[in-house]
Amino acid sequence: MSLSTELKALAQRKRAQQASRIPSEWRLASIPSFTNSNDIIHTCGILSPQEISITAITDAQVLRDKMVSKELSSLDVTTAFCKRAAVAQQLIGCCTEMFFERALERARQLDERLERTGKPAGPLHGIPVSIKDSFEIEGLDTTIGWLGLIDKPANTNAAGVDILLSLGAVLYVKSNIPQSLMMSDSYNHVFGQSVNALNPNLISGGSSGGEAALVGSHSSVLGIGTDIGGSIRIPANLQGVYGLMPSVGRVPYESSAKDQEYMVLPVAGPLASSLGSVELLMETLSEERVWDMHPRLLPVPWRKEMASIPQRKVKVGIVMDDGVVKPQPPISRAMRVVEDMLRKGGHEVVEWDPKPHIEGVHLWETAVKADGGRKCRNYCDLIGEPLIEGMVVGTPQDELTVVQRQELGLQKLEYEKAFLQRWRESGVDALIMPVMPWVAYPPKAWVKSKQWLGYTGLWNLLNYTSLAIPVTTVDPIVDKKENDGFLDGSPRNDSDTFNRDQYDPELVTGMPVGVQIITGRFGEEKAVGIAKLIESLPDSLTFACRHT
Amino acid sequence: MSLSTELKALAQRKRAQQASRIPSEWRLASIPSFTNSNDIIHTCGILSPQEISITAITDAQVLRDKMVSKELSSLDVTTAFCKRAAVAQQLIGCCTEMFFERALERARQLDERLERTGKPAGPLHGIPVSIKDSFEIEGLDTTIGWLGLIDKPANTNAAGVDILLSLGAVLYVKSNIPQSLMMSDSYNHVFGQSVNALNPNLISGGSSGGEAALVGSHSSVLGIGTDIGGSIRIPANLQGVYGLMPSVGRVPYESSAKDQEYMVLPVAGPLASSLGSVELLMETLSEERVWDMHPRLLPVPWRKEMASIPQRKVKVGIVMDDGVVKPQPPISRAMRVVEDMLRKGGHEVVEWDPKPHIEGVHLWETAVKADGGRKCRNYCDLIGEPLIEGMVVGTPQDELTVVQRQELGLQKLEYEKAFLQRWRESGVDALIMPVMPWVAYPPKAWVKSKQWLGYTGLWNLLNYTSLAIPVTTVDPIVDKKENDGFLDGSPRNDSDTFNRDQYDPELVTGMPVGVQIITGRFGEEKAVGIAKLIESLPDSLTFACRHT
Repeated sequence: MSLSTELKALAQRKRAQQASRIPSEWRLASIPSFTNSNDIIHTCGILSPQEISITAITDAQVLRDKMVSKELSSLDVTTAFCKRAAVAQQLIGCCTEMFFERALERARQLDERLERTGKPAGPLHGIPVSIKDSFEIEGLDTTIGWLGLIDKPANTNAAGVDILLSLGAVLYVKSNIPQSLMMSDSYNHVFGQSVNALNPNLISGGSSGGEAALVGSHSSVLGIGTDIGGSIRIPANLQGVYGLMPSVGRVPYESSAKDQEYMVLPVAGPLASSLGSVELLMETLSEERVWDMHPRLLPVPWRKEMASIPQRKVKVGIVMDDGVVKPQPPISRAMRVVEDMLRKGGHEVVEWDPKPHIEGVHLWETAVKADGGRKCRNYCDLIGEPLIEGMVVGTPQDELTVVQRQELGLQKLEYEKAFLQRWRESGVDALIMPVMPWVAYPPKAWVKSKQWLGYTGLWNLLNYTSLAIPVTTVDPIVDKKENDGFLDGSPRNDSDTFNRDQYDPELVTGMPVGVQIITGRFGEEKAVGIAKLIESLPDSLTFACRHT
Repeated sequence: MSLSTELKALAQRKRAQQASRIPSEWRLASIPSFTNSNDIIHTCGILSPQEISITAITDAQVLRDKMVSKELSSLDVTTAFCKRAAVAQQLIGCCTEMFFERALERARQLDERLERTGKPAGPLHGIPVSIKDSFEIEGLDTTIGWLGLIDKPANTNAAGVDILLSLGAVLYVKSNIPQSLMMSDSYNHVFGQSVNALNPNLISGGSSGGEAALVGSHSSVLGIGTDIGGSIRIPANLQGVYGLMPSVGRVPYESSAKDQEYMVLPVAGPLASSLGSVELLMETLSEERVWDMHPRLLPVPWRKEMASIPQRKVKVGIVMDDGVVKPQPPISRAMRVVEDMLRKGGHEVVEWDPKPHIEGVHLWETAVKADGGRKCRNYCDLIGEPLIEGMVVGTPQDELTVVQRQELGLQKLEYEKAFLQRWRESGVDALIMPVMPWVAYPPKAWVKSKQWLGYTGLWNLLNYTSLAIPVTTVDPIVDKKENDGFLDGSPRNDSDTFNRDQYDPELVTGMPVGVQIITGRFGEEKAVGIAKLIESLPDSLTFACRHT
């Protein structure tokens, strides 16, 4: 369904306003043809060599230390990331709200304060942090891609925003998302399509697609996304960066507290090009004064020793294929690479039977659709905006009554208990499995893909930590369609058919491929520790963004 | 409404079966007239002097150490508590299920294991733990006082039970409760009336009334109750023992996970005659292997240093009267005693304005009634049992739709945020206030009392830890009706009228009076620390059960 003339005009006005936020000297004269947005960013002449080298730093801790020691000023760092994000926005559509002046003013204040007091403003002193559009920032819109929410600036900051600022961070952009946040392709009627930082013919993913594209284009050293079924991990993988989906209660996010009607709670977490940035954010949030800043934050301390490389043999369960949708060949290869590294490193690798996952995935789907799409309809009704078809949004038939919700709640609890018992008895430290069974899609293919979110959604249902890590990139010579029996037998179902037909090694040449590490409830430290272990093993093929 | 002949017969059969669980040699020949049940327990001749001295130990840690060092056998200890509970049951009706043979067999196994391995079975080695009827124990009924649930033995243990057993505890009785668990007077059609351990003409309280009476009669050194609006704290205060209502997630309780429909979650916590027992349980549950035994337990470690006497000046907010129902004179005196001790001890005491509490109490009431009484009606309908009138149970008019629940959820969140901000900005370590505005009631008066649960329910809404502690006892010479302006002015409302008319110093002579210490979200350690501080201050009048 296309937009009415009136709605089109509204969207155009918002986009024009958005474009005007970019200072003229940061504007590209024209948008050249390109593959990796970083190539243009490096050659367009808008960023100075120093700005390019500042934004090439992938570890937020390193960046902070340089600011605290005054090797770099906060203003230098903020300017560099603002400029890079501005250019990236013109190339790949990763941003929604941009507020560079406010960011630069804050950077100046931080520099002045450091100069005056000799003390950093907090553990995130001066670090530019990009954040998903769904976080309210005072004075800015929080459209979340809905036309009906344009020109309704927030009166206050979301708790997560206040907390980041109180820790010393600098906010400068909010990032693009899909309508409803319930798809893995980030486009909406307000801001249009966000594409992949490494290939504009492919999607950035979703729902934290713009966020992952910001990180993938090194326009952000630390991004905050949200995840209710894969929304951090899928875009992180598509851009070849790290994405952590924590258990609820460690990272502030108003919707984790509000959206109880989903029964599966959305959760916020970091996206970054380094584990160091992920760990810095998580450790910083695990402080007593942070727990007291929102009524739903939990006093779970950061257990630093668990986030280090385990000095013992670990036991890892492996799921190569969940039996529903067979992963495309590059993903199977990434899984084999990791498995092989662990085995050669002397660690125990066991097969993990994914059959019981199916029941959990169905519970997840029933839960996330339980409002029958009411919330989205309400947003649409604000202004007569059409709903984008094919998203994971309930229809009136999916709506559950109070009693049905209670029954679902009990089923969910029983499932959680049985899963936890299995986990405990298995003795695994982690499971490793694909994030999704596909490598990349062209824009607007995802809604037609009969999408199967079973690889990611299960862990939201269970509230188990999962960390997506990059492993390798697609090589069309190596990753042939017939590898790993990908084309053997009949497709299992419509999703499997789509996934089989869709794989085209040429289309996704060079695109990143990763895996997820699942470490149970509140397994954030363990996930970081296992990721460090994998990266420390010989023959690690850890994907590094191509421009670095 | 009285019971049908058929239902009466059913109840009688269950009570006869219950009575048969007491070995004949532990039965009282007749029930003498008494005031404090402990007087009869000490003189009836059923307990040996050693058994009396074992059950006089109030600190579960001391008891455990004596068993671990083999000064006492687990069998000796279990026998002593089983006998005492059996006698108490005959005097004050504190138990539901009694399973002494099973307990003694387990005690023998623990002794044998200790002898064989030299190692205790866990941190609760040999400690007899009594538990509220609502916890399932394999092979036993969980009627929770409903006739329709008789003869439906549980197939498995509740997670809390399995966890206690895995830590080395010995279970031996379940304790009496009110129908629906939603009143402060524990009687039901199945097991009848539970009365106060210190005076059988007065109530034990509720809903953990039987549990508090077990502890108050020294028939239990560590009891597990539950609380959704005061159900641990009120009976603890009525029996002059400690009762901790923790934040959700630290003590396993299936209903905390299941009863999401209440929006305010019931929570389990300890009742005991000593802070040492309270601390032992909480510390023991705060272990990594315990967190992995139920999907809703949170990995919050026991912060031992916070549970010690603070080595600094603390700041305490005081609420003498919440403005809705004026506390009876002995309670105002208890409050003044504590305030005075703190001030003389050099601590900062500030008045805390309770006006904003009212809104929270109304949210609490709306939330706990949101199912419109459906759950209770379902239990009644099992067998045509009448509902006891006057409980805090919703009627169909109170039932909320999904959308109304969401709205209530948002209101609750906003209230929580505002309260947390006020708490943080005030800098208080704790609030101290009455647990309830009354001292004690005769049986079946509570349902007519137009009860105001604002002193306790607010902390359940907010999920803030509260610890009820004993302070003093009623002295009819001192605690005159006209004290503290108790009779001044017109009553404020029907609840206040009832409370004013009901106070009779003679009726409640010698009954315990206490206060609650509220320490915010996950403030369990701090609550214990502040209680230790108060008890360490000069002129402490800490109430000790009269028989010790």
